[in-house]
Amino acid sequence: MTDSSLSPGVLFDHARRSRIGLPEAVFCQGKPAPILIDLLERFGRGQGRPVFFTRLDPSFFFSLDSVLQSAFDYDSISKTAWGDKCPKSAYEGACAVVSAGTADAPVAREAARTLEYLGFNYTLFEDYGVAGLWRLSSCLEEINRHQAVVVVAGFDAALASVLGGLTPRPIIAVPTSVGYGVARGGESALHSMLVSCAPGVAVENIDNGYGAACAAARILNLLAEQANNLKVT
Amino acid sequence: MTDSSLSPGVLFDHARRSRIGLPEAVFCQGKPAPILIDLLERFGRGQGRPVFFTRLDPSFFFSLDSVLQSAFDYDSISKTAWGDKCPKSAYEGACAVVSAGTADAPVAREAARTLEYLGFNYTLFEDYGVAGLWRLSSCLEEINRHQAVVVVAGFDAALASVLGGLTPRPIIAVPTSVGYGVARGGESALHSMLVSCAPGVAVENIDNGYGAACAAARILNLLAEQANNLKVT
Amino acid sequence: MTDSSLSPGVLFDHARRSRIGLPEAVFCQGKPAPILIDLLERFGRGQGRPVFFTRLDPSFFFSLDSVLQSAFDYDSISKTAWGDKCPKSAYEGACAVVSAGTADAPVAREAARTLEYLGFNYTLFEDYGVAGLWRLSSCLEEINRHQAVVVVAGFDAALASVLGGLTPRPIIAVPTSVGYGVARGGESALHSMLVSCAPGVAVENIDNGYGAACAAARILNLLAEQANNLKVT
Amino acid sequence: MTDSSLSPGVLFDHARRSRIGLPEAVFCQGKPAPILIDLLERFGRGQGRPVFFTRLDPSFFFSLDSVLQSAFDYDSISKTAWGDKCPKSAYEGACAVVSAGTADAPVAREAARTLEYLGFNYTLFEDYGVAGLWRLSSCLEEINRHQAVVVVAGFDAALASVLGGLTPRPIIAVPTSVGYGVARGGESALHSMLVSCAPGVAVENIDNGYGAACAAARILNLLAEQANNLKVT
Amino acid sequence: MTDSSLSPGVLFDHARRSRIGLPEAVFCQGKPAPILIDLLERFGRGQGRPVFFTRLDPSFFFSLDSVLQSAFDYDSISKTAWGDKCPKSAYEGACAVVSAGTADAPVAREAARTLEYLGFNYTLFEDYGVAGLWRLSSCLEEINRHQAVVVVAGFDAALASVLGGLTPRPIIAVPTSVGYGVARGGESALHSMLVSCAPGVAVENIDNGYGAACAAARILNLLAEQANNLKVT
Amino acid sequence: MTDSSLSPGVLFDHARRSRIGLPEAVFCQGKPAPILIDLLERFGRGQGRPVFFTRLDPSFFFSLDSVLQSAFDYDSISKTAWGDKCPKSAYEGACAVVSAGTADAPVAREAARTLEYLGFNYTLFEDYGVAGLWRLSSCLEEINRHQAVVVVAGFDAALASVLGGLTPRPIIAVPTSVGYGVARGGESALHSMLVSCAPGVAVENIDNGYGAACAAARILNLLAEQANNLKVT
Amino acid sequence: MTDSSLSPGVLFDHARRSRIGLPEAVFCQGKPAPILIDLLERFGRGQGRPVFFTRLDPSFFFSLDSVLQSAFDYDSISKTAWGDKCPKSAYEGACAVVSAGTADAPVAREAARTLEYLGFNYTLFEDYGVAGLWRLSSCLEEINRHQAVVVVAGFDAALASVLGGLTPRPIIAVPTSVGYGVARGGESALHSMLVSCAPGVAVENIDNGYGAACAAARILNLLAEQANNLKVT
Amino acid sequence: MTDSSLSPGVLFDHARRSRIGLPEAVFCQGKPAPILIDLLERFGRGQGRPVFFTRLDPSFFFSLDSVLQSAFDYDSISKTAWGDKCPKSAYEGACAVVSAGTADAPVAREAARTLEYLGFNYTLFEDYGVAGLWRLSSCLEEINRHQAVVVVAGFDAALASVLGGLTPRPIIAVPTSVGYGVARGGESALHSMLVSCAPGVAVENIDNGYGAACAAARILNLLAEQANNLKVT
Repeated sequence: MTDSSLSPGVLFDHARRSRIGLPEAVFCQGKPAPILIDLLERFGRGQGRPVFFTRLDPSFFFSLDSVLQSAFDYDSISKTAWGDKCPKSAYEGACAVVSAGTADAPVAREAARTLEYLGFNYTLFEDYGVAGLWRLSSCLEEINRHQAVVVVAGFDAALASVLGGLTPRPIIAVPTSVGYGVARGGESALHSMLVSCAPGVAVENIDNGYGAACAAARILNLLAEQANNLKVT
Repeated sequence: MTDSSLSPGVLFDHARRSRIGLPEAVFCQGKPAPILIDLLERFGRGQGRPVFFTRLDPSFFFSLDSVLQSAFDYDSISKTAWGDKCPKSAYEGACAVVSAGTADAPVAREAARTLEYLGFNYTLFEDYGVAGLWRLSSCLEEINRHQAVVVVAGFDAALASVLGGLTPRPIIAVPTSVGYGVARGGESALHSMLVSCAPGVAVENIDNGYGAACAAARILNLLAEQANNLKVT
Repeated sequence: MTDSSLSPGVLFDHARRSRIGLPEAVFCQGKPAPILIDLLERFGRGQGRPVFFTRLDPSFFFSLDSVLQSAFDYDSISKTAWGDKCPKSAYEGACAVVSAGTADAPVAREAARTLEYLGFNYTLFEDYGVAGLWRLSSCLEEINRHQAVVVVAGFDAALASVLGGLTPRPIIAVPTSVGYGVARGGESALHSMLVSCAPGVAVENIDNGYGAACAAARILNLLAEQANNLKVT
Repeated sequence: MTDSSLSPGVLFDHARRSRIGLPEAVFCQGKPAPILIDLLERFGRGQGRPVFFTRLDPSFFFSLDSVLQSAFDYDSISKTAWGDKCPKSAYEGACAVVSAGTADAPVAREAARTLEYLGFNYTLFEDYGVAGLWRLSSCLEEINRHQAVVVVAGFDAALASVLGGLTPRPIIAVPTSVGYGVARGGESALHSMLVSCAPGVAVENIDNGYGAACAAARILNLLAEQANNLKVT
Repeated sequence: MTDSSLSPGVLFDHARRSRIGLPEAVFCQGKPAPILIDLLERFGRGQGRPVFFTRLDPSFFFSLDSVLQSAFDYDSISKTAWGDKCPKSAYEGACAVVSAGTADAPVAREAARTLEYLGFNYTLFEDYGVAGLWRLSSCLEEINRHQAVVVVAGFDAALASVLGGLTPRPIIAVPTSVGYGVARGGESALHSMLVSCAPGVAVENIDNGYGAACAAARILNLLAEQANNLKVT
Repeated sequence: MTDSSLSPGVLFDHARRSRIGLPEAVFCQGKPAPILIDLLERFGRGQGRPVFFTRLDPSFFFSLDSVLQSAFDYDSISKTAWGDKCPKSAYEGACAVVSAGTADAPVAREAARTLEYLGFNYTLFEDYGVAGLWRLSSCLEEINRHQAVVVVAGFDAALASVLGGLTPRPIIAVPTSVGYGVARGGESALHSMLVSCAPGVAVENIDNGYGAACAAARILNLLAEQANNLKVT
Repeated sequence: MTDSSLSPGVLFDHARRSRIGLPEAVFCQGKPAPILIDLLERFGRGQGRPVFFTRLDPSFFFSLDSVLQSAFDYDSISKTAWGDKCPKSAYEGACAVVSAGTADAPVAREAARTLEYLGFNYTLFEDYGVAGLWRLSSCLEEINRHQAVVVVAGFDAALASVLGGLTPRPIIAVPTSVGYGVARGGESALHSMLVSCAPGVAVENIDNGYGAACAAARILNLLAEQANNLKVT
Repeated sequence: MTDSSLSPGVLFDHARRSRIGLPEAVFCQGKPAPILIDLLERFGRGQGRPVFFTRLDPSFFFSLDSVLQSAFDYDSISKTAWGDKCPKSAYEGACAVVSAGTADAPVAREAARTLEYLGFNYTLFEDYGVAGLWRLSSCLEEINRHQAVVVVAGFDAALASVLGGLTPRPIIAVPTSVGYGVARGGESALHSMLVSCAPGVAVENIDNGYGAACAAARILNLLAEQANNLKVT
């Protein structure tokens, strides 16, 4: 018997950051273990190049040897890790991350952690579902003080429509797979967000907190660039 | 050549009203024309037996001879007709029918017309979508003065969740096929209503204003029965 | 390595009961363990505030320390728990909960337990599927003595249509995920109920016994309110 | 400009009847007009070979020249036609065709017409939906005097389950595309029939009355063959 | 803490056999363990009443105490069990069960075991997929000596169409969940069978070998009845 | 006969612009004709309030009386109309609208027309599908000189991923219903965009050019606000 | 009123043929009429550049002025047109196009016409469905004398599996939208072909005869290239 | 208790290779363990007949006794095994296998292993997703030196369209189940490939690397045959 598994081949797109302002990240789910371990060993703390890992399973991560674990800042709820972060942006704007319920925490925090990794400011507003509208009303003004809004919700995702009708900010909606029955792993939330009666709500894939943060980062990068240009003048 | 179409066979369930409090209705869509005409001729005004026709297409109805047309109270938006109505209920309670947008009118009015046919009071609140929440806030108190609430919405159907979180009344939600793309002919609205974050929202099939009114009528019948019993005492 | 999980944030909607007559409940499925434990510790028996927990997994519950377990009335089939119940309603009406098969027990009992928690009377009729119609016939009169009917069925869910054609009561149908193949986790039962040939059948999400009980409670609350008003007069 | 349409190519499977007891039929829907006309001209009355045409659109058929029309027995509700029928079977058994509503007539009659074409006896029971169960009860005994049962229903198709639990006969269920919303063109009826709680219900494609009659004919052929063998003995 | 699980309620439809010729069976999947054990204890060998158990999981069955196990004839591939079988039918006809591949064995054998339990003869033909047509050709004559044909296939289920075009017998097709990707748990096989180009193929739910055998049994019962009547004469 | 259509009820959300920076628009599809005509009569040129009409069908529009037609700037490809536009923004930034093929023109131009109505600058890049990559390469630099990018594509929508990997700008992707077969009315394009391998691509509903322009406008509004603030300083 | 439709923008990928061996084609469905007319005027007979038009609707084509019509070779069944064809290939190999039924003619002939336009030889085999297997057996040897096989089928598409198990040639399967009910516009045929039990069947989108011919052309181009190289040597 | 599992029945199609140039393979997923073990024991190294096993689960394989394991060349990433390979082809052409990301490795390598087993040359290009287009550009020329191209991608599968627009070679696309949310287990990738804007891309079922290699082998077999014929001349 021979286990003839070929050695893994990974081609990093290191030029991505200079090209589009966002560094490549490693989507860990489904990657064979040897490839993942190889990547973690190459991009731990202090090795000179910030790399972000998403969907890094806790049971896998905590089974690694402790030296390798200690080379990372790991968060088990969002399942994200980094060795080193990107440099903190000089731009003082920030992104609001608003979620409907505590079950949405893994996704909301994936967005928050991505923003932190990229060097941006953010505030996390959790458990603001519309079944109790007073919660949203009480913090609307504070949310509107942010430059971009990421809204995270499962089930009927009505929060996206309600918030979209109340804030003038760019709003990026992330459906979550929270729910059962016709919630269908987030598909109903996704569809509600896409057909939102509020204009200009943009949507990410189900559970894609990372993508939402990247969409927000594209906006913050642009604001930072403009702020920089104008200040210089 | 012979067109050997067999003569139509219709078995009316006339005992339905005494059994469940709701008379049989005729769902016209898809029924062959000769069967429909036969039924209309048998149940026009003054022929002694109230029968309700739903999904009766305007182009078909207005192509009938004028004597037959004049035997009916027909509404072209809801596509409903009756010769005679059921007797007006002595019960003074009422049902609120609340819709999200004017494009939902055919369904909201099918519900309203059904209630009128069955002899119940109702109020129609149209164009109360959550993208402008102030509209709903301004009439919430009035809605809550009704005994049952039918909520009609397409697109993301967020109105059902928001209203479900604000009213203590029995609430029956009807998704409409209004929308495009992933609205999918009302499926997204249906799913949003079914996975509503507000507790105790009950749902009807897409565009089924008739069914929602019947569900409300079951409640109003029960309240009428109880009121009658208690008053007698 | 750092596990930097942020501390959980939960915003309770305690005003819900006074607003809509139904207290907030905790949907446990998918909530991270630390959040759940925190909630259980705050709302056990005798802590002054009734809170209802749904979808609380047995293997999780029975892994808790015994003191915490003993602070709850837990039912492993319906996966529901409460520390204290809501006060018993003075209203003497009741809800019938009728299921098609014993495999529907988890959902039928979630409905029953919710009614008990909310302080309402109910009767549980199990295993009344239409493949043996005599079972339903034998108890129809008894079912009709209840004020509301919750019908729970998987597979083809034909029970909802048959019962809907036989009872005048408000009827709330709950599809269950019982079945295989094109049963599709309850979707076929859901669709059968939504397109029921019996008028006025209202439907909840798949497996949502809790929601059905809440819909019934909205009706019972209304009847209680009317009864109270009329008696006072 | 040249319209270079190639001449049509049709390969008849004339041996089908001797092979499986059922002659080939022509499914007209979607076939280009010249091919259809060619076939009709070859298989009209008296041309020696019985051929059955299904889904032959009335507006197309009635636009043909009158000589061609007169060569066929055409039924506009079932959209079926034949020049000559197959010889009448000597077998005296029969098939019951039971439908839930008058809107199912096109499909129920396609089944009935197919049986007639094939030379078998049948009885048509229309409008026996379960929302008024008394209708079915009143004729159950008569249905059971037939050797096979074809049940035709749209919407929730609950009739198939109820009848399947009451008759010992081979039962072939045909869902129809009658309905709207989640009826989804007959898919919900199809699924209900496939997951029927009654054992041994066999199912055909949506609106396939022809196929159901063929399935019944396979049974009747077998009974005829056995009857013949036993009588000979 | 109290585990207040209510005691199970099972209503047997013992009259089913005299009504439709098929005894009630117990579908074990999803039933709570205490209910299952209770049923097994009541219907083991020698307790006077034949009951058939389907989808009885091996790991569950083999965890029972050995006395209870020994009261059953259990087959781990089809996951079926009985204490006593129904009496052997005097009818000498038989059913052919033909499968496309060895991965279809659980379903093909569920059909075979059901036939055996009901007292009918059958022959099992396994691994006759159409990618190697010679296999089917070699045994077609033998298949046609049976009175009914159950065809079991996953993936593209082309076997049903090919066999349906070659046999005159009543043919009941069972799609299996074998496959991956767009096989979608048997849905593609189901659809292929439903839209089969061969006339009169009747279809069961995915993986429903039990239902196919029941459909065949309805036919065999009918043949037996006719044979009996004719012989008596 | 009486056509008792109730008079239409429209509740305008005129405060929307001050609340979220985007005025309410009228979605015309599915609205009954009398309601539409009433709205057009109230919001034609020179009546003081800019209102935007989307999905205004050409055959309907061109059937209006010519005075009413002449009160609007109407575009038949995008099916959009306005009486008066919003005031031109002082902000000099602009949005790029890039489409994959000429069949996407209705959607791309709906986005362009919305931007024009709202007072923003834009450039339209049509027919840049990736099957001929050189087209995109040739204008990438010009696209990147815009502040936001709307990408419009049907079929496989690969353009969104390729462009998302090449531009640092906020990118809003709009799937179109162009295609056939599994293109499924734009669903495949939608899904491709949602699961794009390029990070931070935000997505709108199928054919929702209006929504994409609104999402871009939220970004341009924000940039304008910041530019204004910084210049003032 | 102004119809401000912007003038159409078309960017031809004229380099496609030299890059991949296949010239760009114009997919006409959904393209606005002015764009189509402009393209037809530019690429009629004798204008020096062969261009292929697919999905060119007959009612549109025959409404054009006769001079424009006469500049094209148009086929109304396949809905294809060309002004000039590509030069005839020197390669003597050929492609077999095999269809299951005459209703598949539009797709089979789109494939045939594409091959003719591209300059390749082909043979068209129509009406070879597996319900009558003898048809396929009779011409298998002839089919195998071709270098590539395009198989076109709707409904259950079993022909692809049967033929895939009988021919060693590269086989490209095209599902058609022929059928009804769960045929679902060709989706069932598509899925059957994708999960075919015969190895190495490659599949195109529903009704994509053009694509199948292009896939075959890639193979024929390669064979021609190799033949050329070897002969030169 | 009796476990009466019938002994397994396997009918090998050993003639397949001579008929279509591809030997039968064993699809292991879902096959009962005893059948699998029996097959492995019959077709290990040196037993004279090459047989290929796909989807052979590592945990199952590594649980076999070591003698049996050592009789196979097993690869745990592709889950494939063989005892003996087919003889190496004399043909010197080769197939390129190009994947979008390292998570696609199991499928890309299943294709590669199948080619190796069948005796063909191949080159594996991994991690060439279009988010970093420079990767593909850098090796396009090398890819085009191969006779056939298998492209393997999950998520949006844009690689298939981009590569399809750049290579003249026959191209076989395999979607993978890599992704989450609306990636839907590979369905979005499948659909993107089927509606690819590049002409002549042929597609296999999700994760079917084996099938793609077989499709490529049909082409390589044909080229080998032609090369042989021409050289002989």
